[in-house]
Amino acid sequence: MKSNLFFIGIDGGGTKCRARLEDSNGMLIGEGISGPANIMRDSALAQRSMVEAIEKAVAASRLSIGKEQCVVGAGLAGANIAQAAVQFSDWSHPFHQMHVLSDLHAACLGAHNGQEGAAIITGTGSSATCWNNGEFTDIGGHGFPIGDVASGAWLGLKAVQHTLLCLDGLRPVDELSATICKALHTQNANDIVSECATFNTHHFAALVEQMLPLLYMSVDSVVSLFTEGANYLDRVANVLLANNDCSLAMIGGLSTIYSQHLSSPIQARTVSSKSSPQQGALFFAKTRYSDLESLKLTGEQ
Amino acid sequence: MKSNLFFIGIDGGGTKCRARLEDSNGMLIGEGISGPANIMRDSALAQRSMVEAIEKAVAASRLSIGKEQCVVGAGLAGANIAQAAVQFSDWSHPFHQMHVLSDLHAACLGAHNGQEGAAIITGTGSSATCWNNGEFTDIGGHGFPIGDVASGAWLGLKAVQHTLLCLDGLRPVDELSATICKALHTQNANDIVSECATFNTHHFAALVEQMLPLLYMSVDSVVSLFTEGANYLDRVANVLLANNDCSLAMIGGLSTIYSQHLSSPIQARTVSSKSSPQQGALFFAKTRYSDLESLKLTGEQ
Repeated sequence: MKSNLFFIGIDGGGTKCRARLEDSNGMLIGEGISGPANIMRDSALAQRSMVEAIEKAVAASRLSIGKEQCVVGAGLAGANIAQAAVQFSDWSHPFHQMHVLSDLHAACLGAHNGQEGAAIITGTGSSATCWNNGEFTDIGGHGFPIGDVASGAWLGLKAVQHTLLCLDGLRPVDELSATICKALHTQNANDIVSECATFNTHHFAALVEQMLPLLYMSVDSVVSLFTEGANYLDRVANVLLANNDCSLAMIGGLSTIYSQHLSSPIQARTVSSKSSPQQGALFFAKTRYSDLESLKLTGEQ
Repeated sequence: MKSNLFFIGIDGGGTKCRARLEDSNGMLIGEGISGPANIMRDSALAQRSMVEAIEKAVAASRLSIGKEQCVVGAGLAGANIAQAAVQFSDWSHPFHQMHVLSDLHAACLGAHNGQEGAAIITGTGSSATCWNNGEFTDIGGHGFPIGDVASGAWLGLKAVQHTLLCLDGLRPVDELSATICKALHTQNANDIVSECATFNTHHFAALVEQMLPLLYMSVDSVVSLFTEGANYLDRVANVLLANNDCSLAMIGGLSTIYSQHLSSPIQARTVSSKSSPQQGALFFAKTRYSDLESLKLTGEQ
């Protein structure tokens, strides 16, 4: 591995972009953080966020490193969508090499230190993958509202739907509807409609924080929502782990809660994450870099 | 009633605005149609659509009628949202009088010829109301995706969600998933995500047309969706009709299908619509006009 090269791992999502900079010996020498980097939503913004996070990581290293010395592994939200990934790859980037993968794949590789393994991420969204025999198998992660079952956005939407049914007299009012009304500062269905008219996934997911105390108090409607979510994740895990010996890492803000509600056989295969999504993206960049070098050597023979 | 006055009933929705023009004897003398008139989405556009539909109705009458001679009943989508209704009422309109009500209320009044009665509308959206003892009681109609259970948009979204679960191997592939894949010209989950990224309620509702043949063929997943929708509407009807003798009109593109799946006691109280939403809005305008005239007379005594 050339000693004048540096490796960068990017974890880019809908709100933040993190960069991890390592030298050719695998030593962490800088980190940087910037804004949104979802290439399906805004490809140009994702490029700017990536460059900014990388420049911050380089500045933190206090070394004089040119972008052309960097091999970048870019784990980016939206990279699972072929159209978005192709469009993004048209970028004449300033780096030595850039290898793009989805944020989900970067997280999975990070969780298992680049080894085979599966990952289920549940935060604002939800998605799952398994890295096995050199291939990723993805499940879910289709976005809100058509997919992302069990995600924070999904839980928040379900809670609002429940609340409207209660206010309409179609379900008995309960602690969940009262809590959502309080969170939205109203007792009135039309006000909830006005309030939610501009809601995105983050607004819906933000309601989960208020739902958690009710889950711990075993409020029926809340337990029922989380159970529905956990049952979905359990089915996902069963499909992901059916034909292999992989372990499963549960990642994201809701992972601890859902982990407790998975079936015993799935729980028995659950492990903690070993490293970060940035490290996963960095591992991906190193592997792809080595592959390309081997090809060159083979070509030279 | 002053003979130089004319009465206009407006039915304004998300895509079209219809005007019905009657003389002071209740004789239909013109009709007009124009574009969107949802006052929550775009109040200024709704005003322009209303004026355009009215001008067309006046032109069709071949009479010289000034706007200041018109008493307008405006049944408008979005008028159920207090904030939108207040903002719309700030309009210094050119009419003799304008009386605003929601499109739902106009439809209910029309269906029962201004008499007491209930209405459930199921088309792209869904909503319900009962006009009883001089008051409207509304249920549902909260919009997509937080409300509008059983609507076309709701059915279409559920069908897409089902299809993604099938493609992920979490449910067995069936005629519904095959039909939705065909409608979206793909067999691939990521392509469905790309396709649906720009979907609005109308796009989701448009999928219902492809689902109906499967309903008639009794495909389990489709029957299950329509049954869930019908059960919701049956609960809505039970609440609407609980404490009165009102009849129920089922209105909208999905009304015939859902009517067949309602419980027997509800079906027994179902009647056909007597007249149009424009006529309902016109009835509302006439009643409000008479009320104001009586007040004037009382004031003059």
